[in-house]
Amino acid sequence: MVEIQGLNIAVIGATGAVGKQMIKTLESRNLPIKKLLLLSSARSAGKKITFKNKEYVVQEAKPESFEGIDIALFSAGGSVSKELAPAAVERGAIVIDNTSAFRMAADVPLVVPEVNEQDLLKHNGIIANPNCSTIQMVAALEPLRKAYGISKVVVSTYQAVSGAGAAAIAELKEQARDLLEGKEIEPKILPVGSGENHYQIAFNVIPQIDKFEDNGFTFEEMKMINETKKIMHMPELSVGATCVRLPVETGHSESVYVEIDKDGVSAGDIKELLSEAPGVVLQDDPDNQVYPMPATSVGRNEVFVGRIRKDLDESKGFHLWIVSDNLLKGAAWNSVQIAESLLKLKLVTIK
Amino acid sequence: MVEIQGLNIAVIGATGAVGKQMIKTLESRNLPIKKLLLLSSARSAGKKITFKNKEYVVQEAKPESFEGIDIALFSAGGSVSKELAPAAVERGAIVIDNTSAFRMAADVPLVVPEVNEQDLLKHNGIIANPNCSTIQMVAALEPLRKAYGISKVVVSTYQAVSGAGAAAIAELKEQARDLLEGKEIEPKILPVGSGENHYQIAFNVIPQIDKFEDNGFTFEEMKMINETKKIMHMPELSVGATCVRLPVETGHSESVYVEIDKDGVSAGDIKELLSEAPGVVLQDDPDNQVYPMPATSVGRNEVFVGRIRKDLDESKGFHLWIVSDNLLKGAAWNSVQIAESLLKLKLVTIK
Repeated sequence: MVEIQGLNIAVIGATGAVGKQMIKTLESRNLPIKKLLLLSSARSAGKKITFKNKEYVVQEAKPESFEGIDIALFSAGGSVSKELAPAAVERGAIVIDNTSAFRMAADVPLVVPEVNEQDLLKHNGIIANPNCSTIQMVAALEPLRKAYGISKVVVSTYQAVSGAGAAAIAELKEQARDLLEGKEIEPKILPVGSGENHYQIAFNVIPQIDKFEDNGFTFEEMKMINETKKIMHMPELSVGATCVRLPVETGHSESVYVEIDKDGVSAGDIKELLSEAPGVVLQDDPDNQVYPMPATSVGRNEVFVGRIRKDLDESKGFHLWIVSDNLLKGAAWNSVQIAESLLKLKLVTIK
Repeated sequence: MVEIQGLNIAVIGATGAVGKQMIKTLESRNLPIKKLLLLSSARSAGKKITFKNKEYVVQEAKPESFEGIDIALFSAGGSVSKELAPAAVERGAIVIDNTSAFRMAADVPLVVPEVNEQDLLKHNGIIANPNCSTIQMVAALEPLRKAYGISKVVVSTYQAVSGAGAAAIAELKEQARDLLEGKEIEPKILPVGSGENHYQIAFNVIPQIDKFEDNGFTFEEMKMINETKKIMHMPELSVGATCVRLPVETGHSESVYVEIDKDGVSAGDIKELLSEAPGVVLQDDPDNQVYPMPATSVGRNEVFVGRIRKDLDESKGFHLWIVSDNLLKGAAWNSVQIAESLLKLKLVTIK
């Protein structure tokens, strides 16, 4: 019997919203997999998940789980990553971590393959997957940086509830149903990761994602600001962010104002540039009302960009509307894409 | 029998979403009213509306309707205003027009009383009420302009469907119901004022409000850009806008980035300034998760401001989150407020 050649891959947080998308993404790609190990907390262990017509039993994640694993895809929350990622690295695995636990660590590459794939060459075992809202923005801004240089970014986000997990999706639907029937609601989930207050999300807008920092920005906003500078290797880039939760299930939208370094560039130039950018799909045809929307982006791996306009007062200012599936390019797909890059760059070898 | 002293007031578009709010607003204020005339299209004429416990029959608006009228509040669409506002002025009425028909005309004051009440002194019969999203923004920005000067504004809006009328509200609710039950939907209303395409609004985001201009901006975005400069008397102000429709019934939100002219100002200074600003309510207490939201702003006349942060890279840059009831301060209340200002400035006299 010939043993199949391939990688031993572990998914940690296999039963979560992002974990499920990771497994689906692995299923749809051609990454050679010899062994797939699905891990979770003790609570979810024992659940069964089908992958390529084979049933897998989810096991409790422990340090020993990572023996023989080549790549470990973590998406079970920051505390799990902090506890188990070093244990996985010790046992020879490369960790691709979807939490914020290691993103800003100096020795951890923070990677969006379209932008800074080469940073993977400097990895020390852990590679961080950026925050969902950061990934889609830098994928669209990198072609502008490369062609013209950029100096300033102001972003306002329109974020879906699935970024806060399955309980937030359920809460949105339940609240919408109750409000349509004229019933009282009792918000329990959103905003998450914060204080004791929870607010209506159905037919409302919550300008808080994650907890507040002392400077008045939320942690989500600080992620966008700091991660953008790190991924683009531009500590001097001016970045301002306002992150807002909307009654949308999946698909983050962003209104981005960017100032480039070059004069005389037109909106048409930017459209042409983005129409050829890797991982980006241009959806920009006002005459036919074509622009990106969450509802038309769900289930797609790409970043959609439209509504590209040159500012009427700032000759170097442009406005962009960027939408992507926050569970795919924002999480699962970018993580699997990093695994594919590792293989391409020969940073992991098939045995 | 002593005749009551007061003004003869006409409301045109009395049966519409804004018209109804105008009547409610007139009911709650102390503007002395001798005669109230409720006008509409022929289609809605004959409907009955109660005002201060008295029943009024809505009449068809015609040029002759305005004989003896002191103030005419128009909110029946641009074409009705274009046709009938001059006829009202000819007959001695002062028109307060809530449509975009006359807003940018050089001889028409465009007024938010907290900002430029004195512009009323130069009126020639027609006074324009600004676009809803513009009103709430300039009410919050004027105190900054006055104290420090401002040079640049970048705004991204989160606009409620009631801005597109009663049919859009009905569509949002119907779509939400159908989607929750797993039914197919057939969008018919939103976006309005545009081409032939209509898109899902429930659990989605539509980055188009009103029709597209040749420069790629929508008419709604151009309103915000041009009206802001006119109201603030700052043709040189840099203003960029992205206007987005959300699945929210009432209450527009705005993420505003503003650069002031003065160095050394703190977020605390701005908070103090806005806490004393007319028509503005400061809701800014991150420690207790206090910030403005549509759900908590509905039914209120004020403009709510929170999430005030100093940009981390631009010493003169600040971020604000501004929410207001688009049917009240954004329309009905600002119009009635203009009528009150006319009385205060003795531009209309009680007979």
